[in-house]
Parts: sequence; C-alpha cells; structure tokens
Amino acid sequence: MKRAVVLLSGGLDSATVLAWMRREGFACHALSFRYGQRHGIELHRASELARALGAVEHKVTEIDLRAFGGSALTADIAVPKDRDESTIAHGVPITYVPARNTIFLAFALAYAETLGASDLAIGVNAIDYSGYPDCRPEFIAAFEHLANLATKAGAQEGARFRIHTPLQSLSKAGIVRLALELGVPVARTISCYDPGTDGEPCGRCDACLLRRKGFLEAGAVDA
Amino acid sequence: MKRAVVLLSGGLDSATVLAWMRREGFACHALSFRYGQRHGIELHRASELARALGAVEHKVTEIDLRAFGGSALTADIAVPKDRDESTIAHGVPITYVPARNTIFLAFALAYAETLGASDLAIGVNAIDYSGYPDCRPEFIAAFEHLANLATKAGAQEGARFRIHTPLQSLSKAGIVRLALELGVPVARTISCYDPGTDGEPCGRCDACLLRRKGFLEAGAVDA
Repeated sequence: MKRAVVLLSGGLDSATVLAWMRREGFACHALSFRYGQRHGIELHRASELARALGAVEHKVTEIDLRAFGGSALTADIAVPKDRDESTIAHGVPITYVPARNTIFLAFALAYAETLGASDLAIGVNAIDYSGYPDCRPEFIAAFEHLANLATKAGAQEGARFRIHTPLQSLSKAGIVRLALELGVPVARTISCYDPGTDGEPCGRCDACLLRRKGFLEAGAVDA
Repeated sequence: MKRAVVLLSGGLDSATVLAWMRREGFACHALSFRYGQRHGIELHRASELARALGAVEHKVTEIDLRAFGGSALTADIAVPKDRDESTIAHGVPITYVPARNTIFLAFALAYAETLGASDLAIGVNAIDYSGYPDCRPEFIAAFEHLANLATKAGAQEGARFRIHTPLQSLSKAGIVRLALELGVPVARTISCYDPGTDGEPCGRCDACLLRRKGFLEAGAVDA
C-alpha cells in the first residue's frame, strides 16, 4: 500500500481529506502541530479522528510560531466575531498565521521523505477559503515544484512529489457532503477559532460562520 | 534601514553571509534552530557571532526534526569520516537532513513577514556544497517564487521576497577569502559535524575536510 502524509488539524476539512486519502487506498500517516494555538482541543480531536479514520500513525510535532507573533490564532489578538459574508470573503484576516502552510508542508515533506512517500495531502480550498494566500492552487503548485528540487528523493531518486488537495474546488457545502459520504464523524471535528474550554464552538468566528453556512446549504445537520 | 532575516548556524558560511548582509546595509535579524543536532555547540557560537557581527536580534527556534529521523546529523547514525574528495563531491551524504533548508526558509519567511521584511539570506553554495539538493540555485529560485505566493505580504501587499545567497557561486576558498575580508572571526565559527564536547573539530568529517581544503587553497590560517 502506498504511503502518504496527511496534514490533520482536527477540523472538518482535514478530516475529510484523511477519509478521502484512505478511500484512494493510501496508508495514511497523519501529522499535526502544536504551534502555540489559542486552544489545544483541536489536537485531541485530531488524534481521535486519526484513529477513527484508520490512519496508520499520528505524529504531533511541536513548533513555536508564537515566537514570531503576528496572528490572532497564536498571539493575544482577539478573534474577529460576527463578520458578514462579504467581509469574510475579502482580504486576509487577522487569523492568518504568517507562512503557516509553508511551514506545515515543509514538515510534511521531511516526514514523507523519511517514509519513502511522495504523496502529501492538505485540506486547503480556494472557495470559502477565508482569504488565506497559502490556500490557493498556485501556492500548492509552487510547493509541489519546490518539493522535487528540495529533496534527495526528488533530486536524485526520481520521486515526483504530489500534493493532494481534494477539497480545492469545493464549496463548504460540497465539503460537508463529501465528509458525510465518506463517513467522517463530523460532530467530532472542530472548526472554531475560539472554542470554550469544553470544546464548545463560539458560533461567531469566521470558521463557525462558514461551517454553519456549509451545513445549511448542504441541507445537513451538524451533529 | 531595511530589515533582513539571516539564517545563522554558527558555521563559517552563515557567519560570512551575516557579515555580507551587514555590509549591504541591512538591519539583520539572525535566526537559528535547535533541531535535535548531535551537538549544541553551534548554537552558542551562533549567538556569539550574532553579537560580534552586529545583528540587531538573534532568535533561536526549537523544532523537532529528530521525530522524523533519517539523518546522521539528527539520528544515531555515524557521521562518515575520512572520505576522499571525489566521494564527497558525489551523491547526497548521510548527513543530509530531509527538507531541512525548506523548513528553515519557511520559518525565516514567517519571521520576515511579521517584521515587514522581504529580504532573507542563507549561506548555501553550489560548489563544494557537499551534495545537498536544497543548496542548489534552482531550489532557491523555487522558494523565492513560493514566498511571494505563500504570504499576505507577497499576495496582497506587493512585497517581493528576495533570498540572498552571496556564497552561491563561491568555492570554499572563495568563502574563506570573503570571510577574512569582511572581518568574520573565523576561529569562532564551527563547521564540524561531530565536534568534541569542548567544541574541538574532529578534523575528519566532510565539513572539516572541506574547510581545511578551503583555507589551504585560500592560503590562509584557520585561527
């Protein structure tokens, strides 16, 4: 069975990607990060989801993005609430973490190379993507190109790295439908940027609002 | 004064890059990593060199590359000794750390973005480069392209990231000459992959052998 490294955050999107990669027949090595998030709940959910969705391994790597500051997800900046749809759709929000997906994919690449894997997967999507530059298809294509040049496997052993982004062109409603079709335990996924200590979503941050809209448009219940 | 992020390892090459960037007029923010190296001496030297060469700041970020294994620099694999020049020149050595420069540059990019800097610098060189794929000019060009797509600064604010690689086309002898010209305290830099606990170089690993050859060809004394 071909191995793949799947970035897993504990959210709906990455859980759906893991389920999709499993259906594609990959032996999935899930990778999460403890990076100074505002909350640690998503890591608990990530390990629960890795087990539930049949990952062969789940690694949590510690990195310190707080050292650089600059984001509401890692610093003491308030997470914006109750923004309307047109505001969410435009501009890079304060929850943007500088170069986060570049760092995450760089680690995934290192992990893949030591596993002898050349498949990576990440839950980016360009529609309803909340304005993050490092979720766009051109970013992913650039990283794929980089991966082949950056590694011993790519440079000398003929490996051709591929970054799977099965959610790339899906709306949030499309992701919800795919998640349900693949049997993802959606109620165990967490999207909220600012949950209560019990893991209860705030219901008002961009991630909560996009998720609610997605379930509504998919005609599905978030439970 | 324009700010720049300079990757600094404590070795001769990165110290020379820092001195070069200072001469180019940049306010330099040095960045080092504690990444499960076999030895911690290089980090002490890095902070000493950052001070000596006038960096405005020196950050040491902790990351765990050991979690992925696969290199003599981070795992319990012996560092090769006494290899002859033609062996060193061919193939990727066991001291290659999977995706290391990709990870280092990703962090440098995050740091730069939070500083509002668009200049990064790294001491890669393609001649006498000991066979690392992520030291080649095409890798650097690919990362520069990625950086502009990956960031809010590049995607929305018109920043054009530039990765300075002043050593790219220099031989080790050329680097030694440049270091001496720029007043780098070369005796305080450490190149060895496997030094004694007192920081004494082994004199037999690839890095020691390349360094010795460099000083010899430059007609300089390594002290």
